[in-house]
Amino acid sequence: MGAMKEKLRYAIVGAGALGGYYGAKLAQAGMDVHFLMRRDLDVVRRDGLTVRSKDGDFRVQVNAYATTEEIGPCDVVLIGLKTVSNAALPGLIPPLLGEETAVVTLQNGLGNEEFLAGHFGGRRVMGGLCFVCLNRTGPGVIEHLGHGRLSIGEFKGPPQDRTMRVVGDFQRAGIDARAVQSLITERWRKLVWNVPFNGLGIVAGATVAEVLRDDCLLGEARALMAEVIEAAGRLGYAIRGDFIDAQIEASRSMGEYRSSSQVDFEAGREVEVEAIWGEPLSQARSAGACTPRLEFLYALLRRLGGRR
Amino acid sequence: MGAMKEKLRYAIVGAGALGGYYGAKLAQAGMDVHFLMRRDLDVVRRDGLTVRSKDGDFRVQVNAYATTEEIGPCDVVLIGLKTVSNAALPGLIPPLLGEETAVVTLQNGLGNEEFLAGHFGGRRVMGGLCFVCLNRTGPGVIEHLGHGRLSIGEFKGPPQDRTMRVVGDFQRAGIDARAVQSLITERWRKLVWNVPFNGLGIVAGATVAEVLRDDCLLGEARALMAEVIEAAGRLGYAIRGDFIDAQIEASRSMGEYRSSSQVDFEAGREVEVEAIWGEPLSQARSAGACTPRLEFLYALLRRLGGRR
Repeated sequence: MGAMKEKLRYAIVGAGALGGYYGAKLAQAGMDVHFLMRRDLDVVRRDGLTVRSKDGDFRVQVNAYATTEEIGPCDVVLIGLKTVSNAALPGLIPPLLGEETAVVTLQNGLGNEEFLAGHFGGRRVMGGLCFVCLNRTGPGVIEHLGHGRLSIGEFKGPPQDRTMRVVGDFQRAGIDARAVQSLITERWRKLVWNVPFNGLGIVAGATVAEVLRDDCLLGEARALMAEVIEAAGRLGYAIRGDFIDAQIEASRSMGEYRSSSQVDFEAGREVEVEAIWGEPLSQARSAGACTPRLEFLYALLRRLGGRR
Repeated sequence: MGAMKEKLRYAIVGAGALGGYYGAKLAQAGMDVHFLMRRDLDVVRRDGLTVRSKDGDFRVQVNAYATTEEIGPCDVVLIGLKTVSNAALPGLIPPLLGEETAVVTLQNGLGNEEFLAGHFGGRRVMGGLCFVCLNRTGPGVIEHLGHGRLSIGEFKGPPQDRTMRVVGDFQRAGIDARAVQSLITERWRKLVWNVPFNGLGIVAGATVAEVLRDDCLLGEARALMAEVIEAAGRLGYAIRGDFIDAQIEASRSMGEYRSSSQVDFEAGREVEVEAIWGEPLSQARSAGACTPRLEFLYALLRRLGGRR
């Protein structure tokens, strides 16, 4: 990424709800954004992207392409693809890469940075954690239900100049973006919530509020959180035990919220089982953590939420 | 139960598939059997009970009643009611009780003997473990899909004369009946299988064969078995660790078998969550056993399988 360059050139790979939303926000703010589109290509070329949000609806005309070859090299590649489609990335990304292109995964769970580093070199890789509730409600139409915070960090090490430039672009686009000191620690912190609530959303069919109302399920959610924290700690990502109470308290304002995993599951779509439960379990095991509930939950999700 | 009495007088309370089958077998062998019936009363009074079985179909005219007052005191009360209806028993049983009446629960899981002992005195109470696959397919019609072994024991202590008399009656009726030295140990041994397979049948929607084919689920089934064995051991009911391998091996001949709990769940009926998982978990906890998977499974089942 040229340090002197005035305007960064962005590619969005995986322009579903996630990539579409953050890309549309950047485009609306006048950034140079290029979307890889598949099923929505024709509609988006004609009508642009539409975001419906309580923060204000907007529609923006965007540059949409059928292939990454047509887009060509960019400074920043934002990946919004579901992790269950990661196998497509090694074929899609190369035409977007220049000498200093940064590849930023906005995807859920663990292992995506490692996957990209394995294919394109760790130096390129960054990640973003999205605290946002989105739904694709039609071709080129995204419903923004709430939140939107974006925590961006380097795969390895503290923020660099490029990290701050990307964060700055998102901030100018009206996104509550921030740089994080340790991306992987933040991923584990996010998993402390996602592992129980996304998981119980599927295996118990429970919304956030339903988990909180059911003493047994709430106890299991807390126990799962403790397992995730234990695993993270053994791997060198320290999370304080009182983070559990804070997460439970923060959940009380979420009401009958359904996690993206639960929404995927109920819609019959493949759930991101490996990224959210499988890879954390595998790392927990390798670190010698005791995670019986995570193991049990993973076994259920692998059967219930896998490719269908 | 009069030791000199030539023929025991039996009452069957809860003449669904279970009570209907064992009662019909006794009646067909010429025993003195009296059925409490509810929804099937008229049909059974007219047509008798019909058992369809690969061992041979049969129909038998039986004594059917609408109330236990009409039946009056018996020597043996056999209880085949689902445990989710246990609250009805204190109202139903008293008219059946003479000085020496034995009350024998053929129900699933743990805690039924204790419940009956609390209401009618422990001296009366016996229990039977039914290893049988039955379905009620219509009014007064029971399909016997296989097996049928019945293990009968005293609530407390080794077999008595009355135990052997009841076992003898079942044997004369063509049932593979036997007396057991420690009824509660046998209940825990049965739970070693029921806890994982009935549970995974519901939360993973898996038949026995599907659990056995899925390495992750099979691992969890084994881990659940180990938890049940640990709990039983702490409670003084020793079960050897190699019982797990034996149970897994024995399951291989069961094919795509659906446990009674899974059948109940899929038919939208309330599942016997407390008897099969809740009471064992509660006893495991009181004994200080470490049973995280059982706890997690119970929390899921309580939500999924409870009263609907």
